[in-house]
Amino acid sequence: MIDIAKNIATTPRRTKASVIRELLKTTNQPGIISFAGGLPAPEHFPYDFVADTVKEIMDKKGRVALQYGPTDGLPELKEEFIKFLKKYEGLNVKPDELIITTASQQALDMVGRLFIDASDPVIVEKPSYMGALQVFRSYGAEFIGVKLEDDGISTEELQEKLEWLHAQDEHYKFLYLVPDFQNPSGVTLSEAKRHKVIELSEKYNVAVIEDSPYRQIRFEGKEPKMLYRLDQDGKQTHNIVSLFTFSKTFAPGLRLGIILGHPQIIKKMEILKQSLDLCTSSLNQLIAAEFLRTGFFEKHIEVVKKDYRIKKNAMVSALERYMPEGVTWTNPEGGLFLWVRLPETMSADDMFQDALKENVAYVIGSAFHSDGSGKNTMRLNFSFASPEKIDEGIKRLAAAVKKRLVAVK
Amino acid sequence: MIDIAKNIATTPRRTKASVIRELLKTTNQPGIISFAGGLPAPEHFPYDFVADTVKEIMDKKGRVALQYGPTDGLPELKEEFIKFLKKYEGLNVKPDELIITTASQQALDMVGRLFIDASDPVIVEKPSYMGALQVFRSYGAEFIGVKLEDDGISTEELQEKLEWLHAQDEHYKFLYLVPDFQNPSGVTLSEAKRHKVIELSEKYNVAVIEDSPYRQIRFEGKEPKMLYRLDQDGKQTHNIVSLFTFSKTFAPGLRLGIILGHPQIIKKMEILKQSLDLCTSSLNQLIAAEFLRTGFFEKHIEVVKKDYRIKKNAMVSALERYMPEGVTWTNPEGGLFLWVRLPETMSADDMFQDALKENVAYVIGSAFHSDGSGKNTMRLNFSFASPEKIDEGIKRLAAAVKKRLVAVK
Repeated sequence: MIDIAKNIATTPRRTKASVIRELLKTTNQPGIISFAGGLPAPEHFPYDFVADTVKEIMDKKGRVALQYGPTDGLPELKEEFIKFLKKYEGLNVKPDELIITTASQQALDMVGRLFIDASDPVIVEKPSYMGALQVFRSYGAEFIGVKLEDDGISTEELQEKLEWLHAQDEHYKFLYLVPDFQNPSGVTLSEAKRHKVIELSEKYNVAVIEDSPYRQIRFEGKEPKMLYRLDQDGKQTHNIVSLFTFSKTFAPGLRLGIILGHPQIIKKMEILKQSLDLCTSSLNQLIAAEFLRTGFFEKHIEVVKKDYRIKKNAMVSALERYMPEGVTWTNPEGGLFLWVRLPETMSADDMFQDALKENVAYVIGSAFHSDGSGKNTMRLNFSFASPEKIDEGIKRLAAAVKKRLVAVK
Repeated sequence: MIDIAKNIATTPRRTKASVIRELLKTTNQPGIISFAGGLPAPEHFPYDFVADTVKEIMDKKGRVALQYGPTDGLPELKEEFIKFLKKYEGLNVKPDELIITTASQQALDMVGRLFIDASDPVIVEKPSYMGALQVFRSYGAEFIGVKLEDDGISTEELQEKLEWLHAQDEHYKFLYLVPDFQNPSGVTLSEAKRHKVIELSEKYNVAVIEDSPYRQIRFEGKEPKMLYRLDQDGKQTHNIVSLFTFSKTFAPGLRLGIILGHPQIIKKMEILKQSLDLCTSSLNQLIAAEFLRTGFFEKHIEVVKKDYRIKKNAMVSALERYMPEGVTWTNPEGGLFLWVRLPETMSADDMFQDALKENVAYVIGSAFHSDGSGKNTMRLNFSFASPEKIDEGIKRLAAAVKKRLVAVK
């Protein structure tokens, strides 16, 4: 047999297995309450809608649904998504600013593939979404981490880092942000900072990737405008590339996402996608187009928001009741995750096996740090488990923390 | 705005737009009879089966269908595919030898990504499938072309090239073959040559990619064994990686393919796929699992084979009647394509616009040649148009050829 170690290329050697995906395998055991995944609550999936819609699609548009489609996506879905952006984001977007992707992980791969050569600096939040770090790393990105504050990325530190990169003649490629209910922290970028980010993008001529999978799941507080919208209204840098997914607002099983960007960038993405998978499932695109067109989307999202608010509050309430002093957490206004900080002396990495023994699981925070720091942090998902399970799970997690605290002292 | 030309990375700069995808845009005009695409005949798509099956899936397995799935694919589909391989190919395969992909274009991307670093030699047939050439080129492959004969790749020339690469200490990565009803030529690799390919794979320790999207669509002649099977039975090089797709045997709109290979290779592929798109649509995987499980697949494939045989014969018959002397073509025993050779002095590239004026389209053969040769060749698809349209289309194509022949003289 060929010597695999000698035959594989540089990119796969740089591609590390996803901690989340590997964790999920161990945390699917019965009895474990898992806060590790990012799974939407299955009880809300619109099963009847999908069954009825597929029947109608087969009757009326079967020849489109089962055939190859255009690489940039079906006009049916683009049209409905443009209406959606107009209604909810006040955006005026043309079809050539959009490309449909096989969910947002593919969008992240396309962003990495389009921009990154080995050793190119890529600016990320600290912590940042590990699925993005994983794929950008596979292309050889050098991460420049900028600290995350309660109102989003530190624009002060961002400016310093950009200034430094600029002074060094570094070929920095883009700033990657999750501005709404960030994964993993749950933090939202304030509107004031959004203006600043666009200003810096113009000044330092750097692309900004606005990855926003949770934006529609806001259950409290006021919504700041999308970066893409602020750019369209004002500075017109055209440097913003926004990523949208149907995984949290509809169903991950459809594998549908959308990239929004300047037509020149979208055209390049289209050529990349030809060689990545030719096109995204036409059937699934038509299902999503109907989901938007019929207004089922709006009803669905209301149900989801109501449920996730209850669950988030259940988790925060349980953390308040069970966690020992010295442990802190974020209290997000939307999304699927919150972020827990243990005392600096503790390691959530080391505690993971203890937690499993208590039958509870989380994702280690260090996996979201481009430099491996953040050992005392963890990400908790609140969308999947029921409020009762959340209460029980946090109780178990607190037990593991308390045992460690004693051991550390 | 950022300077895109300066900001994009090496891989997209090497990724050229697909001639077929670009052609398809021009050939979709009404009135044109197009032999350019590779579209399955839509009249046979199992519309009712899909509608009924999705209803049943939503009732019984909705929570699996609409949720994230494992990166390597759902056990339901793996299980049915393993039975399929046992029944039709006499293969004994374990689940860890399989990974489900977002159709075979993604499989080709994963092969390229796993093996190719810039300047690595990759051995291909001349002509070869352009979707594979496109993606391998994007990773910086140096193509070593080996001529294609009526019974498949020239194993004599293959051995010479391998010997030469070996003597030069070249880090050659794999041999890419479409052994059954090759795209574009329609040629099938004989069983004798298959044994030779495995022997050479062992001798020169080179991986062999067996890309076989049309194998199930054999409407005449005897089927040689899969390379994977011959290897399993005999030489046990474990160097064979086989690619399967549901695009021609079921529906391209589902975007489903499968890679078959040694578990060590599949494990690497799984890690790559985590960063490419996390997982393939669970809904679509369950539909395909039911397609196999219920035996609907077998009935469907019989209908398709009967239809494509009639259409292929209609095309060959029309070529015999209308084409001037000096034009030759292949007569495939299956698949979707045949291959036309014009006299050496003619250029199918130059003739393309003439053909469009006659309201008929094809794909230029040079697009399938890694070195840009084959200017006098073209690929014709016979699966999509009706026998009547095929007759009319070949008549038009012959008219364009005759006008050129006169002009050339």
